[in-house]
Amino acid sequence: MSTSGLNMSRRIRRTPYTDRVEAHGVSGFSVVNHTLLPKAFRHSVEDDYWHLRAHVQIWDVGCQRQVEIRGSDAARLVQWMTPRDIGRARIGQCLYVPLTDADGGLINDPVLLKHAEDHFWLSIADSDVLLWAKGLAIGAGLNVSVSEPDVWPLAVQGPKAEDLMATVFGAAIRDVRFFRWGTFPFRGTRQVIARSGYSKQGGFEIYLNDSSLGSELWDTIWQAGQAFSIEPGCPNLIERIEGGLLSYGNEMTRENTPLECGLARYCRLDGGIEFLGREALQRGVRDGVRREIRGLLFDGGRCPPCGKPWPVLAGGDGGRQIGQVTSAIYSPRFRRNVGLSMIDRGFWDPGQPVTILSADGVRRHGEVVALPFPHSVA
Amino acid sequence: MSTSGLNMSRRIRRTPYTDRVEAHGVSGFSVVNHTLLPKAFRHSVEDDYWHLRAHVQIWDVGCQRQVEIRGSDAARLVQWMTPRDIGRARIGQCLYVPLTDADGGLINDPVLLKHAEDHFWLSIADSDVLLWAKGLAIGAGLNVSVSEPDVWPLAVQGPKAEDLMATVFGAAIRDVRFFRWGTFPFRGTRQVIARSGYSKQGGFEIYLNDSSLGSELWDTIWQAGQAFSIEPGCPNLIERIEGGLLSYGNEMTRENTPLECGLARYCRLDGGIEFLGREALQRGVRDGVRREIRGLLFDGGRCPPCGKPWPVLAGGDGGRQIGQVTSAIYSPRFRRNVGLSMIDRGFWDPGQPVTILSADGVRRHGEVVALPFPHSVA
Repeated sequence: MSTSGLNMSRRIRRTPYTDRVEAHGVSGFSVVNHTLLPKAFRHSVEDDYWHLRAHVQIWDVGCQRQVEIRGSDAARLVQWMTPRDIGRARIGQCLYVPLTDADGGLINDPVLLKHAEDHFWLSIADSDVLLWAKGLAIGAGLNVSVSEPDVWPLAVQGPKAEDLMATVFGAAIRDVRFFRWGTFPFRGTRQVIARSGYSKQGGFEIYLNDSSLGSELWDTIWQAGQAFSIEPGCPNLIERIEGGLLSYGNEMTRENTPLECGLARYCRLDGGIEFLGREALQRGVRDGVRREIRGLLFDGGRCPPCGKPWPVLAGGDGGRQIGQVTSAIYSPRFRRNVGLSMIDRGFWDPGQPVTILSADGVRRHGEVVALPFPHSVA
Repeated sequence: MSTSGLNMSRRIRRTPYTDRVEAHGVSGFSVVNHTLLPKAFRHSVEDDYWHLRAHVQIWDVGCQRQVEIRGSDAARLVQWMTPRDIGRARIGQCLYVPLTDADGGLINDPVLLKHAEDHFWLSIADSDVLLWAKGLAIGAGLNVSVSEPDVWPLAVQGPKAEDLMATVFGAAIRDVRFFRWGTFPFRGTRQVIARSGYSKQGGFEIYLNDSSLGSELWDTIWQAGQAFSIEPGCPNLIERIEGGLLSYGNEMTRENTPLECGLARYCRLDGGIEFLGREALQRGVRDGVRREIRGLLFDGGRCPPCGKPWPVLAGGDGGRQIGQVTSAIYSPRFRRNVGLSMIDRGFWDPGQPVTILSADGVRRHGEVVALPFPHSVA
């Protein structure tokens, strides 16, 4: 129970898949939403990276908790929380919805699933959106219930995911388009399954709505996956950074707006909708933001884990600080380190030379690149 | 950086003391409020337990984040969040304030520090009280600012804590009574220091208000502590359970009311104050609660870590389920396992025989005891 060095207690919740994850020899966990997220199995991050790009993996992402909002004011509350126009959301659609506070700062960046006009799920990143939504609703006297249902996402990711899922849930799963969902039968129940996930390799997320079926769902996919070289996995830091997938708490915090994080396309700022932080975001568009998210490619040998932001200095000789690295790792494909960073205006053009001060004391030379990273780097 | 098996990233925040904690050879972390909490050093939990009871320890409890509430509606917002009457709170006092939602469910159980009539800190356990307070304030249109200041508690705990603190901060620290605070000089700054902490061995918490002074504060206490056999430490599970100290997320969640958790004395239910969940708690008093927190003493050899609640069955032969264990560990002093549990009405009297089904499959016999545990057990 404590193989990972992370001390176990009820406070850090297990998922319906944790028993299976332990049986597969998980060697490290992280904690997201007070819930265990596996972070490593037997293989190195690089081996897992190559496997994810070639085969299929099963990921316990039960930590992506659902915040369920129901009631006659449900749509009003959801719209109040996000700059994205949810008026046109259709049932069966997944919507990426940045959540903002009154200053336009990011509270979370969930995926919204609309079940009915008065019934939504927010599938959340790492902050207590349940408390945020409940607080707003109680304060404003809205007619909604806000709760955390017994729903635990399980991801199947990788290029062979569709073939594997078709053997388990039938060929109809192939018709589910990207960021759409349908319901599929499993052991006499019906389960929401979306074509989505925290990788760029394709795949699905099963929103299992009955924790007692967790082991059975895992085992079913695992057995069927043998023909597809399935391995247990987890969000892969190399693949995530190369794909430009942002992580709440890493690339963005309440200190950042969606505009800084490259999420302007999810913000309707023409006045057609009302939401928290609209004035701040309109001001940001009018005045321009002073920093924006960018990729970095840099040298100096394999970089250490980025446990706290690293300073980014202007130029190859290291001038004044112009930003910070928020996630970084060595890419075996690019044979350079890749990073995500927040870079000041005037320095964010691709090709900008930079010096990075990593935590190991090494001064590393590199340059700014656009996101997502190019498929290949010269 | 990843010695603990817990993968490091910016999302799980370091404290101003993490560098020192790592230098002392920390071997495990937990995560509280998106922040690292050391959980083990070189010694076993039992060795740390005996040391804490005899000497003095320095604890990085920076994860006890502060939620600062300021403004003309600050007192109104704080009172709205808690059943405790804060009208009589004095500056210089620490108040333990359970926070409840509209159903009387526990949102958190912070310590309140009042700095002025319009200025409060909530020193929180593990949930995003900042989002809860901000949501309520925005929803209700209250005139407050809610923020997380640059304040990072460092605890000095153990019977020699007062002597050690007096050598660092002067003899006046001895005059600070239990659950009171004063301000004391440190390197040209003034720091809030309270006689408080998450143990029953006595001690202080320094609310360092400048993260850049973290290492210097640690080193100063560490040097002065050499004469008192100081060791790095952390909240000790044996000592915490024996002392009946509750842990949010373990003993209590949103599913529990303060009444169930033995916190009725912190709830003013006569109608003299208004707060969220008052009707639910008044109903709970009128009708009686159906379960309440209790201690357990039980056998069967050293129990495993309690990573998820264990069923408690009635009687030594194991009848129907009458509750669950939420925290448990072997006590070397009592030479039995000690646990905290939620027990159904009709079965919660001290001496009630029970059977506990721990995660290792062992059926363990024991009995209900009142909290806190007696100083000695026959």
